[in-house]
Formats: sequence, structure tokens, C-alpha cells
Amino acid sequence: MTAADVAAFIAKAQPRFNAELQAFVRIPSVSNDPGRAADVKRCAEWLSSQLTRIGLQRVRLIPTARHPIVYGEWIGAPGRPTLLVYGHYDVQPADPLHEWKIPAFEGRIHDGFLHGRGASDDKGQLFAHVKAIESLLAGQHRLPVNVKCLFEGEEEIGSANLVPFLERHRDVLRADAAVMSDTRMLGPDQPALTYSLRGQLALELEVQGQRRDLHSGNFGGAVHDPLQVLCEMLARLHDRDGRIAIPGFYDRVRGWDAQERAYLARTGPSDDAVLREAGADVPWGEGGYSIYERLTVRPSLAITGIQGGHTGHGPKGVIPRRALAKMSFRLVADQDPDEIERLVRGFFARIAPPTVRYAVRTHIRSRPALIDRQHSAMRAAVRAYTRVFGRAPQWVRSGGSIHIVSELARVLGIPTVLMGFASPGDSLHGPNEKFSMKNFQRGILTSVSFLEEFGRT
Amino acid sequence: MTAADVAAFIAKAQPRFNAELQAFVRIPSVSNDPGRAADVKRCAEWLSSQLTRIGLQRVRLIPTARHPIVYGEWIGAPGRPTLLVYGHYDVQPADPLHEWKIPAFEGRIHDGFLHGRGASDDKGQLFAHVKAIESLLAGQHRLPVNVKCLFEGEEEIGSANLVPFLERHRDVLRADAAVMSDTRMLGPDQPALTYSLRGQLALELEVQGQRRDLHSGNFGGAVHDPLQVLCEMLARLHDRDGRIAIPGFYDRVRGWDAQERAYLARTGPSDDAVLREAGADVPWGEGGYSIYERLTVRPSLAITGIQGGHTGHGPKGVIPRRALAKMSFRLVADQDPDEIERLVRGFFARIAPPTVRYAVRTHIRSRPALIDRQHSAMRAAVRAYTRVFGRAPQWVRSGGSIHIVSELARVLGIPTVLMGFASPGDSLHGPNEKFSMKNFQRGILTSVSFLEEFGRT
Repeated sequence: MTAADVAAFIAKAQPRFNAELQAFVRIPSVSNDPGRAADVKRCAEWLSSQLTRIGLQRVRLIPTARHPIVYGEWIGAPGRPTLLVYGHYDVQPADPLHEWKIPAFEGRIHDGFLHGRGASDDKGQLFAHVKAIESLLAGQHRLPVNVKCLFEGEEEIGSANLVPFLERHRDVLRADAAVMSDTRMLGPDQPALTYSLRGQLALELEVQGQRRDLHSGNFGGAVHDPLQVLCEMLARLHDRDGRIAIPGFYDRVRGWDAQERAYLARTGPSDDAVLREAGADVPWGEGGYSIYERLTVRPSLAITGIQGGHTGHGPKGVIPRRALAKMSFRLVADQDPDEIERLVRGFFARIAPPTVRYAVRTHIRSRPALIDRQHSAMRAAVRAYTRVFGRAPQWVRSGGSIHIVSELARVLGIPTVLMGFASPGDSLHGPNEKFSMKNFQRGILTSVSFLEEFGRT
Repeated sequence: MTAADVAAFIAKAQPRFNAELQAFVRIPSVSNDPGRAADVKRCAEWLSSQLTRIGLQRVRLIPTARHPIVYGEWIGAPGRPTLLVYGHYDVQPADPLHEWKIPAFEGRIHDGFLHGRGASDDKGQLFAHVKAIESLLAGQHRLPVNVKCLFEGEEEIGSANLVPFLERHRDVLRADAAVMSDTRMLGPDQPALTYSLRGQLALELEVQGQRRDLHSGNFGGAVHDPLQVLCEMLARLHDRDGRIAIPGFYDRVRGWDAQERAYLARTGPSDDAVLREAGADVPWGEGGYSIYERLTVRPSLAITGIQGGHTGHGPKGVIPRRALAKMSFRLVADQDPDEIERLVRGFFARIAPPTVRYAVRTHIRSRPALIDRQHSAMRAAVRAYTRVFGRAPQWVRSGGSIHIVSELARVLGIPTVLMGFASPGDSLHGPNEKFSMKNFQRGILTSVSFLEEFGRT
């Protein structure tokens, strides 16, 4: 069977593929809702029966402490590369429900889009790979590479059980590269390959003062206001130049040569474009770098939430007994979140006044990820995109963090090809999520082509 | 009629006085609840009919933009001093209702206490003066001083309409002193006279950044996080010595000589006692002063609330578009809240970075109040207390603020005698508010005695 035959198979099967994806989206696999646990399980069962039906072997539904992992493989190509296909079948909550024009779990296709929670994030994108594998197996009864499909049901709640699973089964999961479709294209016809992600260290700082809330008249001047202490501690995290003031913080930040910086300037968005997208009038940040550089090759720190005292309408004279801040450090190569955490905790220990107690809690530790653009899987992806879209994907450095990409690199030692088919307007995590049916089809074709190209390496 | 006759009248009438106070407390005059406006009005009518019945003249129920003011006078003693009796008949909301052991508006007397919202704050205390006036008028058909009763229905919501009323009617309200019973005794048998209150300037600072909430990965490093800016601005309000760092802030703070400071040390609580009451292990504040001094003769600043970004459970990578802080400056003689507000606004204007916009909103401007302990009304109060309680009241400086006391001083130029009959355990503003019936009776006797003593001056 030729590539043209596979394309013809896909064209013919597309209505069935679409109907199957609709059925997939109709299962409300909301992972953070304990009341939906049975739906999440039903979704995993539906997906594993798909893997069996398309011809994968050793298909398993593996229970975890919460939601099951779905696994299936085809390893009938000894001597050929092995690809780990990662995706997640769980979805974000759909509330506020009344803001959806088409109900979140109706699974309706309208105007070329499948509407529904999870249509784009990540069921539609995950399913493109499943249908690509089906299409190749249907014609040829074999695949150009070995494939291991690993689909989790806890991505939207932090992948707590997947990482230990990776560690326990690193032999079974051994592969040469992973592919994940859970990112966006730059425009309707402009694919993108993300090759750099920032890591993250998300912390919570709680300052604890006296044992009860106090009247600010009767006690203002006697005790150290925890909110004041919190502000004074947080204010010391940045210096006047917009740099993070924690000693040692930048020690392992990788420098980039003039060539790479010129490349970033050529391929990345302008300062104005980023500010426009941000809805900001004025830039801010570390001097000496473009905004795109500050977002991608330089670390940053955001205070992401503060709560303490009276937050309702009008005044209330209270000195709260505690104050809480959340913060997110975004890390770049070659920073290590464990080491940064030690530096931050040490810094807080040095600057905390003796008048209060405080606690630091760690929510997220993700390593930065840098994927070699010259890796055979990446080159295969470029060729596949170019064939299907008629143009090369744009190389993108992202300021965000994808925990599982760092963990696949750390535990399995493999790069992840971030082959995203979502569109900027897909409304991920918001109401009225949708996924382009055209991108679903192009996604299947690109995945087929990617498997073939990766098989040639 | 002698003092003994008046006492006998009170003893005989006490059951009726108690029943009347119960009826007063049963009217749910919750001023902040628009659904209770009719009850507030009914309460004002009940109170004005009381004033008529006891023999006051020119009794008026004066409508305002919200809740009425009740006024009545007896000015049949030309050449004698005039006393303005201030009180408030409105009450705090009673929620959470399920925490009341006796329903908040049942008005039940149990174990020597009248239980109910407003029993102590301020209906019981206000009514002690009404019944004192009644007792004197009943026997003698005259009073030892001229009396002007001014009872408002908006104390719990900021007295917004009373201050303009004072300003419009300063001639009618002209008096030599005011008396207000809306403070606490130090213990069951230890009366107190508060002669110093701090003023207050309550502000809100809002920092506004980009036009929408941003993803902290995708935009961390590009824009100035409003929460970070807020912290950095607030952190500059105090210096390392715990003093307020706004230039000029201390310029008008009155210094006290060694004699007064020794008096404060002798009469005020120890540092340990304040910390124990605060539930604090470690003191903090301006160096060189005792905690009691820091609470009463030195100004302070508390950050009373901050809100911004994600305040729920766990992490969320967001750069909020705005951040809000509330703060309360407590001011002392001879600081002026208008001048301090100008200093604070000027300081913010100098330290705000050009990367954000910000807004300052003023919630409360109250002047500090210092009442001359040698004023004839204060000396009369000391003698009245000593006669009824068998011991002199303790002089107290309070760290809190009572807006109306400053306004009576500013608009009418008169001192207020803060003759409180509440007890530390009365649970003002909380569930299970109560008022000691013994203190009600002693309050009536003390008020009678105070009117007589003031008449002798």
C-alpha cells in the first residue's frame, strides 16, 4: 500500500473517524471532579477498546491511585526506532456551563468544528495519532516504527500518578522519542514545532503572625502585621533592574551566542506583538533582552496570588493572623528546580523577620526542556509537516511549562516532538472549546507521514 | 426630691425600665440591611415616643437620606451647662443566626443579662441615659443641666448623614460637652474613662497592569506583575526601625514629657499583658516606646487586606490584571487626616513605577481625639462613677478611633465623655451579644449622678 492508498483510506474513513471522535468527546471525563470518576473510567475503557480494535498489542487499562492509564503497543519492527505516543484523555471542568453555546458534552460538529470540552485539549489531537496508526495498520498490517501509546487521565490535575509509573516501567516504555499533540499552531495554516519549554517552580509562602485576627486600632503598632511582612519579603525577590535578587539564581542559566539570539530575533514575535497580545501598554523586565528572550531563554518570577485580611467591600480594621502568597518561577536551561527551591528557601530563611513564623509549600517542580532541533524525530516531523501543510513548521520557544515533557526527558532520556494541531481560537480550558475538523484530518495525515519519516531514520 | 428619692424611684421603676429595654432590643434595627429599613424607622419612632413620654421637648424624628435621626431636648436651665447625649439605635447584622443560643431579637433576660443584638451596642447604654433623664424629670420636673439628646440610626454604617447634620445644625446643637456610652468597662466593677482616641485614615490602593489576566508562563518576564508592584510599594511604607517611612508623616505627632510617659507606664497595661491579649509571642513596632505608647500616643499603619490573582487551593499560573490592598493609618494628636492623606498620595505618586497605573481611594478620615481630663464634664464623670461604683474610673487611652467623637470636637468644639457600661464579654458585633442588667441599673444611676455633678460646675 502506497502513501496515496493510505490517504485514500483516510479520506474514505474520515466520516467514521469523526463520529468516533464525537463519541469520545461525549464522555465527560472531568478528572478533577470525584463525581465523574466513573465517566473517566468509562472513557479509559472506550479508548483502550479503540487501541485493541485498531490492532495494537498488550493493550492495558492500568489502574492508579486515581484515574487509569491506557497503554497499547506495536513493536513488530525490530531495528527500527521506537516512538512513545503520549496524550491525555481527561478534560478540564466545563463550568460555567451556561456560557456554552453548544452543550459541552453534546459532541456536535458545526461549521467545520467539533464543539465540546476536550475536543481540542486533548481528545481530538490524541485521536489523530490513534487514527493514523489505524490507517497504516489497516493497509499494511505493520507500522514503519515501533509504537508505544501512553494515554493518561490525570494531565489536567498534575499527572501525579504518571511520573511514578514512568519510573517503575522505564524498561517497558523505552523509546527513542516521544510525540505529543497538545500545543497550538501559529495560525490556520502555519504549523509550529516547540523546541524549548521553561521549567517551573510553583511555591506558596504563608506568613503566620499572632494567633487571632486583631483590631487594627486596638493593636496597630504592637505586632508585626503578617501582610506587611509578606509584602516586605516578596518585595526583596526582584532587584531594581527587574532581575530576581536571590543569590545564585542565575548561576546555571545558559547563555546564548549571537547567532542564536539573531535567530530568536528573526523568528520570534516583536516586543510590540507580545505586548499587544498581552493587552499591555508598557513592557517590563530584565534589561538587555528582547521580550521574546525574556519569555523563553531567561527565567522569570510572577506573584500569582495573594490573600490576607479583609478583601470585601469597604474598610475593615483588621490585622489578619496569616497572609498567603503564591508564586511561579519559570526556569530555563540549565536551571534545576530542586536547586532553585533550595536557594529560594534559603533566601526566605535569611530575610524572614524573627517576629513571625512562616511556611513554604511547593506545588510544582518542573525542569526546563530543550529539544534538539537536529534530533532525527524532529527532522522527521519537519518533513511530515512540510509534506502535509505545504510549508515548514515554525520553530517556537515557549515560555510555558509542560511537566510531562521534562519528565519524559528526565526519566526516559528522550526528546518529545510537540506536534500541535490546536488553533489559537480553540478556547482551551474556557467555555466553547472546539477543534477544527480540517486540523483533525491534517493531524492524521501528518502523524502518518511522521511515522513514515521517522521510520526512514 | 433628694438623690435618695431618685434612687428609690429607679429601684421601683427598674422592672418597667427592663421591660422597655427588652421591647427596644426586639426591634431589629439593622442599619446595613435595606430589607430592614422599615424596622429601623419603627425603632426610631419607638425611641422618639419614649423621649416625648419622659418629658423632653421639641422631640423630632428627622429623616435623612437613609435612616432617621431622633432628637429631643430639655433646655429649661438657663445659665447651667448644656450636655449633648449621643447614642445610636441601629445595630449590627445578627448573622450567623444559628450561632445564637438565644435568638438575636427575642429580647430575653437570662442570668442577669439581656441577650440580643444591640443589647449592649448601643441600645442598653443609650437607654440608661434616657431612663436617668426620666427619673430626674419624674421627681423634680426639671434637670440639673440642659440636655440635648441626639440618637442616630447609622453608626454601624459610618454615620454618613450625621456629620452633615451636625454641620447644618451647629447652633441648635450647641453644648458644653457630649456624653456617649458606647465603650467598655475594664472589668465587672472597674469603670473606665477613655480620654484619648487615635484618628484613622483608611485607604485602598489598586494597582492596574495589563488589560487582562495573563498566563504566567507565556507572559512571565514581559509585563510588570501588579501584585509584585503592590508588594514593592507597600514594602516602602515602613523603614527598618518599624517607623512609617513617608516623609513628613511624624511632623505633627505630639511629644509627651517624662511625667505623662511615667503616668502611661503606671496606668497602662504592660507589654506582656497586651501581647497576651493579642495572642502574640513577639512584639514589633517603633523603637523607644512601650507597646501601650505605640498603641495610643504613636501612630501606626496596618495593611488590613490584600487581594489579587489566584487565591484558591493549589497553584495557578496567572499574572492578574489588578491587585488591591487596604490599609489603615491610626493617627495621633496633632496629625490631621487630610494632611496625612496628601502625604500618602504624594508618596505613592513618587514611588509608583511608570509600568502600571494605580488608584487610591479613601474610605475613612477621622481625626484623633484628646479629651482634657480636667474638663468640668470629665471631673463630673469621675465623681459620678466614684459615687455609684465606689471607686474612681481608670483613665484609658485607646488605640481605636470613634469617628463621631472627632466630629463632635471638630464641628461643635466640645469634648465627649466616654462613659461606657459595656463589659469585656458582651460580644459586641458577634453572636450572643448581651448586656448586664446590673450595669444597666448602675448606668442609670451613674448618668443621674453625672447630670447632677455636671450641673454643679
